[in-house]
Amino acid sequence: MGCKCCKKNKNSEELTDVERAIEIVINNFHCYAVKGRKECLTPNELKDLVGQRLPHLAKGMGTLDSKIECHGDADDAKLQFGEYWDIMGDAAKGCKGQKK
Amino acid sequence: MGCKCCKKNKNSEELTDVERAIEIVINNFHCYAVKGRKECLTPNELKDLVGQRLPHLAKGMGTLDSKIECHGDADDAKLQFGEYWDIMGDAAKGCKGQKK
Repeated sequence: MGCKCCKKNKNSEELTDVERAIEIVINNFHCYAVKGRKECLTPNELKDLVGQRLPHLAKGMGTLDSKIECHGDADDAKLQFGEYWDIMGDAAKGCKGQKK
Repeated sequence: MGCKCCKKNKNSEELTDVERAIEIVINNFHCYAVKGRKECLTPNELKDLVGQRLPHLAKGMGTLDSKIECHGDADDAKLQFGEYWDIMGDAAKGCKGQKK
């Protein structure tokens, strides 16, 4: 998937590593939120995102499919940024757990 | 602040940019969670983290102080990783809002 929106922010040199990291996670949302014009993801777009961009962390997420499916129609339902962030948090918690 | 725990994971070369970004946000939590031995942050540790590691994004977070204070005693209360992730999400939403 060509992802032109993932290029660096002009001011990203000034950001700390953590701020740049958060910016990357945000840009990733915008990158896949094609139908919702960068404002929301469909469940199918989220599945593509997780499969392509989180191939390793997805292993720790458990039942992602059921989580996504409960959001409604795979091509029409709209997942807001907050829901995306929560799902990334599930991936992070899974990753954190594996490191213990 | 010396932050030895922020070094790269051995396998981080294999990770995607988004996975590495999530790993950086996780490592940042471990780095500041000194009193809670990498498992939880005190409100004061979280304040230090935000002040030092999110100097730009913190501007979009609004009333961080009141959010942190409601978690209890500044040096004793324990914020779990999920609460930290939610607060990082507030920073991300603020950042996302500024970009519009």
